[in-house]
Amino acid sequence: MPSEKVTKEEAAPKEKKTAIAHKLATKQQEISVTEFFEKNKQILGFDSRSKSLLMGIKEAVDNSLDACEEAGIPPEVSVSIERLNEEDYRIRITDNGPGIVHKMMPNVFGRLLYGSRFHALRQSRGQQGIGISATVMYGNITTGKPAHVISKIEGDDEVAWEMDIVIDTKTNRPIVTNDRAFTWEGVEHGTSIEYTIKGRYVTGKQSVFEYLKNTAIVNPHAQISFTDPDGTKTVFERATDIMPPKPKEIKPHPEGMEIGDVLKYSQNSQQKTVKAFLKNDFSRITDRLATEIVEKSKVNGEKKPEKITREDAIAILEAIKTCKIMAPPTDCLSPIGDTLIKKGLMHVLDGLRPEYYATPVTRSPKAVNGNPFVVEAGIVYGGDIPSDGQVQILRFANRVPLLYQQGACAVTKAISEMDWRRYGLEQRGGKGIPYGPAIILVHVASTKVPFTSEGKEAVASFPELQSEIGLALRLCARNLKSHLNKMERKKKTHAKFEIVQEILPDMAQKAAEHLNRPVPNLDMTITRIMNVVWVEPKVKKENKKLRTITYTVYNYTTLPRSLMLHAQLPKEAVNLSLFSHQYFVDMNEEGKVNWEIKDLEPSKSTTISFELIGDMADTFDADDIFFSGLNPAMVMGADGLPGDWGIKGMEITQTDEADFVEEEEEETVEVEDLGDE
Amino acid sequence: MPSEKVTKEEAAPKEKKTAIAHKLATKQQEISVTEFFEKNKQILGFDSRSKSLLMGIKEAVDNSLDACEEAGIPPEVSVSIERLNEEDYRIRITDNGPGIVHKMMPNVFGRLLYGSRFHALRQSRGQQGIGISATVMYGNITTGKPAHVISKIEGDDEVAWEMDIVIDTKTNRPIVTNDRAFTWEGVEHGTSIEYTIKGRYVTGKQSVFEYLKNTAIVNPHAQISFTDPDGTKTVFERATDIMPPKPKEIKPHPEGMEIGDVLKYSQNSQQKTVKAFLKNDFSRITDRLATEIVEKSKVNGEKKPEKITREDAIAILEAIKTCKIMAPPTDCLSPIGDTLIKKGLMHVLDGLRPEYYATPVTRSPKAVNGNPFVVEAGIVYGGDIPSDGQVQILRFANRVPLLYQQGACAVTKAISEMDWRRYGLEQRGGKGIPYGPAIILVHVASTKVPFTSEGKEAVASFPELQSEIGLALRLCARNLKSHLNKMERKKKTHAKFEIVQEILPDMAQKAAEHLNRPVPNLDMTITRIMNVVWVEPKVKKENKKLRTITYTVYNYTTLPRSLMLHAQLPKEAVNLSLFSHQYFVDMNEEGKVNWEIKDLEPSKSTTISFELIGDMADTFDADDIFFSGLNPAMVMGADGLPGDWGIKGMEITQTDEADFVEEEEEETVEVEDLGDE
Repeated sequence: MPSEKVTKEEAAPKEKKTAIAHKLATKQQEISVTEFFEKNKQILGFDSRSKSLLMGIKEAVDNSLDACEEAGIPPEVSVSIERLNEEDYRIRITDNGPGIVHKMMPNVFGRLLYGSRFHALRQSRGQQGIGISATVMYGNITTGKPAHVISKIEGDDEVAWEMDIVIDTKTNRPIVTNDRAFTWEGVEHGTSIEYTIKGRYVTGKQSVFEYLKNTAIVNPHAQISFTDPDGTKTVFERATDIMPPKPKEIKPHPEGMEIGDVLKYSQNSQQKTVKAFLKNDFSRITDRLATEIVEKSKVNGEKKPEKITREDAIAILEAIKTCKIMAPPTDCLSPIGDTLIKKGLMHVLDGLRPEYYATPVTRSPKAVNGNPFVVEAGIVYGGDIPSDGQVQILRFANRVPLLYQQGACAVTKAISEMDWRRYGLEQRGGKGIPYGPAIILVHVASTKVPFTSEGKEAVASFPELQSEIGLALRLCARNLKSHLNKMERKKKTHAKFEIVQEILPDMAQKAAEHLNRPVPNLDMTITRIMNVVWVEPKVKKENKKLRTITYTVYNYTTLPRSLMLHAQLPKEAVNLSLFSHQYFVDMNEEGKVNWEIKDLEPSKSTTISFELIGDMADTFDADDIFFSGLNPAMVMGADGLPGDWGIKGMEITQTDEADFVEEEEEETVEVEDLGDE
Repeated sequence: MPSEKVTKEEAAPKEKKTAIAHKLATKQQEISVTEFFEKNKQILGFDSRSKSLLMGIKEAVDNSLDACEEAGIPPEVSVSIERLNEEDYRIRITDNGPGIVHKMMPNVFGRLLYGSRFHALRQSRGQQGIGISATVMYGNITTGKPAHVISKIEGDDEVAWEMDIVIDTKTNRPIVTNDRAFTWEGVEHGTSIEYTIKGRYVTGKQSVFEYLKNTAIVNPHAQISFTDPDGTKTVFERATDIMPPKPKEIKPHPEGMEIGDVLKYSQNSQQKTVKAFLKNDFSRITDRLATEIVEKSKVNGEKKPEKITREDAIAILEAIKTCKIMAPPTDCLSPIGDTLIKKGLMHVLDGLRPEYYATPVTRSPKAVNGNPFVVEAGIVYGGDIPSDGQVQILRFANRVPLLYQQGACAVTKAISEMDWRRYGLEQRGGKGIPYGPAIILVHVASTKVPFTSEGKEAVASFPELQSEIGLALRLCARNLKSHLNKMERKKKTHAKFEIVQEILPDMAQKAAEHLNRPVPNLDMTITRIMNVVWVEPKVKKENKKLRTITYTVYNYTTLPRSLMLHAQLPKEAVNLSLFSHQYFVDMNEEGKVNWEIKDLEPSKSTTISFELIGDMADTFDADDIFFSGLNPAMVMGADGLPGDWGIKGMEITQTDEADFVEEEEEETVEVEDLGDE
């Protein structure tokens, strides 16, 4: 009973006289959390005027997207910034979310550390219950004006409510004025917040525009519109109508628990016995496992959970360590997925006309301290992306762009510690941020992203997390490298083609003139020199949602050739044109397609052609074409069928192999012959 | 009255039925600040096991140093780490501070956001009232054990108190057990905290040892001892007995105030009128200024401060903007000072035998948003400092070393944005952290250091702050560059000397042999070729606290020379040997000394010699020697007296100037003569 003790001591005469310690003691006092954040605004991200302007919008948009997704509503969020005078801006963020019930509105917007997602173990943008209230507080501190909040929840007889909110800094409680019901014309449900704030509107890398653009990349299911202070309106249309699967809430996983966690959970448990507590209050602890843990720990499994002592907790944790427990379930996460990352990137970065979107990588979920997480990575390369500076890094956590504190982030560290020279980018000494025409995207999704501060600007460098980021980046970089290699080979073969097709006829003609003989037909000669089967993709953009893909296959060898071609198409985008084509064989449920071309004559060519239609049409990269049935050294423009493709391609026949080696020798001879003429 | 409203709404039937918004509403709840930090331990710096071990010690040592300084006691802090098993460590930190009164002990160690320094506007290490309680919490969560705290305050009849403390996470209140008084043998006053924590003991750049070593650098008045888990004890003895001046608490300065601040201060004011409020509750607002502000703002100066409205606040802030208000007082700060920075660096880095300690720079105080701050910088160069990697950066804030989050820190940004190639370090493209054998120290001291998170690991990049850091670095780097230039010149002249003194006699001898004539005496010839007055410093380390400094002056010119030499000596370190020397002229109160040498004959030399004694003896760099009275182009080994030296040196006489040009020509002639012989 410490408080009682203290009172007793207070009255004790002997503590009355000593000087300095007592003087210091008089200054000891509690600090309200609101006062703390008011004084340390930079921790919440409100440091400079330009950053403050962004932070407020970010918090509001994050909340809007979270609410829409929880309610299963395709988000429509609009942001507008109005400039009142030199430093004062009026910001409004409106969404079509489920709305907030009237009695909750004051606390949601006017109280720090108040929210619905703090204890929930599933992926969400907001968790802390700080952001939007901090925005209201900062707006009020800098302009003296309250925030104006409107919300309407679904239901025929529901009216909308509006109110003005400020936070009482001393008590961390909302003060509400002008609270009234009204009819929000044409709105079924949604929330709107309007606040006035001192800020500075900037353009460029750390601007509101950039934040919204990047939000659109990782939230292709959301429509986001933005009206800037000049009145210019930009709409980031949704790139897909498919809503991400709703993350499910999970129970805490025993991995990484501390003694304090066991004690806390047991104190709060509704279960009647320790065994039931273990089985029902945690994820992945089965009845059998609960029995095993109880037996190993020698804790009485039938006693009440609140009777668990410190020694019990230690024993339970020791027992858990020796058990094989499944990794936490991962349906609490909502990764974007490789197709949608690519789609999102293309949707937003198309203006840069990148040469290549490396196939993004979504790693399988891992867990650190019982918190599941997933890392995704993508790389965009070439085109109009500036090539003289460091690569641009797009960092995301739970689908939220991180624009500040790049240097403090685990993503930046993972990028800096990787040797990018192996993957075709420049980098001094194989360390640091690489240079070149590339944009690197990394998305970390988790039930609990370990941010370095409340401002949620950088992810802390937990070793497990950083290593996963590194792996995702390497896989993605390998895709980039194999593209760069392919392009390099193509370029070289193109050069060879040009030389052979221009110089040989030239030489033949001159030789013929000189010897006064007729110019020979060189088609077969050229074919024998080239000695490749050439696959040339072509994409015709018929309109925004229709592509015609054509592969032309040339046989520049001396024998008739048979081969299979393989590609993975976005299934939703194929139409009859695919199935009706003469070379089409079959397509599986993943969209993997096989074509077969038989006995293509020397010096002849043929084509495979089909259409892709709809939203996903542009996500197919025509360069991702594979072949089987021929020696890889003989084919240009397509890759050998990977071993993990899952579908068996055509075997390389023995004849082919022998025949190929033979031809290699022939080629050399042929060239010498010509030179001698 | 929002709460009343809410209750009414709650009872209203129409909100009963709608689905999702109501479902979401049931999850809304308050989060205790302790729960928040328990879940977001990484924000407090408790992320990895090794970092957690360091963080706890850091918080305790910071508190000890703060308390000692507040009480004017030269700090003696001891830290010991005992390893209990693989992950469990028992840590104890003991100080000789003023102690904590018994009734305050539970709150100081067992309650987050509770402290004495939060509202005080003066430089201190701790401010938030979070650190040590977070350590107690983290120790308890990871090991289940309470912290054991002992404290004794000064006074003959005082006993020491000890108690065990844990934090109740739900309520953020201390729970105390085993509270008892006892006699702490041989201790007059002091505090000790012992806690058990899961951690990992590491060595290297981010270790406890490194933290304590760096703490010793910037706290040369503190004695810090450390016992590592192997039982090895290291003592960082104090480098000086001079205590830093105690920072004074100031009132808030009107600069950078927001509307919310004016309203908050006016609500809490004890003053009777607005005018008195302005004059007495802020720093630097005089009676005249208060009148001016009241008049300009048209606010009634006689009304009560709590009657100030939002409009009044805006008007007052507008009026303040138009007034000339003095910068905030700076006795609230405690910079280390250039001499003590150098002293601290030398004390700790002597093992690396650096070639040069660039004279550190202490900038004059500035203010950002009414918070005064000072930036200090130092550079150590050469010797055994590794030369192949990036320079090492030592970052400090309010005399506390910052070991983590280097990438997020304004100090790193300022260093990276500076072109170090101009100052003799390698750097790709003039950006990024430079390479070379250097250690760069930056200390930021402020009444409120804007840390990026509660873990206090990096300083946020406020533009004003970053630019001051840049300026301090540039000034210090200029010292480094001028040293490097001087060394380069010395090296070249040394080379010239060697050539002239070896080759000329050689040539003369051969020529003499060839012509069968006697070898000529070349002394004067060499003198004429060199044509410099050479000042050569030499330092003899008699013992740890005694140095003999000798300057030898050679006249390698053809005429007798007179000159003055000047140096700034650490005044405390000079003794009679200085004043009794024949060339000594005078010394001012800053320790600036003048010597005068008259008519030194050609080819002759003379010496100035004196002793430096005591603690400060080693802070004098003998290379920092200046001259006057001669044409700068004629002197090697000393620099021309700087214009801002403050003391007038000897004028360069007209004869000297003319005579110098003449000699230049003579030199050339002489060399040709020799060649012809």
